[in-house]
Amino acid sequence: MVHFKESQLDLVFAALADSTRRSVLRQLEIGSRSVSELAQPHGMSLTGFMKHLRVLEDAGLISRTKEGRIVRCALSPRPMQEAAVWLGGLTKSRPGGLNAGSAIIPA
Amino acid sequence: MVHFKESQLDLVFAALADSTRRSVLRQLEIGSRSVSELAQPHGMSLTGFMKHLRVLEDAGLISRTKEGRIVRCALSPRPMQEAAVWLGGLTKSRPGGLNAGSAIIPA
Repeated sequence: MVHFKESQLDLVFAALADSTRRSVLRQLEIGSRSVSELAQPHGMSLTGFMKHLRVLEDAGLISRTKEGRIVRCALSPRPMQEAAVWLGGLTKSRPGGLNAGSAIIPA
Repeated sequence: MVHFKESQLDLVFAALADSTRRSVLRQLEIGSRSVSELAQPHGMSLTGFMKHLRVLEDAGLISRTKEGRIVRCALSPRPMQEAAVWLGGLTKSRPGGLNAGSAIIPA
């Protein structure tokens, strides 16, 4: 299995553990967006929304660039790819694949 | 894109955001383990270790079964699979795939 930097994976998975932040990543799937475009559907204060963007940026999941007075965000796919590969490696390496162990019913 | 239960994804990604918990999942890749076998390499108090197991269990990532006096843990792969599919969907749906946007250098 590829070895990833554990601290980076901590930040990426923590950033993904929030539905607002996951929604922002989905908004950025088809291309970059301004901060105000991104904030609009979320119905929260801009201060609160900027905190979410900062968590995504600290995890390396998005980048911010300034174009005049407009701040635009874009996906930075590599950390997400590393998280996906980590998860994929874990699920694929099990004997019998993803469905192995499905007979065990969680308590 | 498949729609997953957001609260479940919150728990799964939060559980994955810790290197000890990711290490436990890797220990369980090849089959179930007793709690003491799992705890041994981590060099922490059993109380602290049990908290990590509880987070994994609450996220549905592991199940615990009691065999006499031994508590054994096993992977429950479905939530991990859902997280992997969510990430895969996000990274694959971008024009140009995973490497699109890589020219944007994070600040």
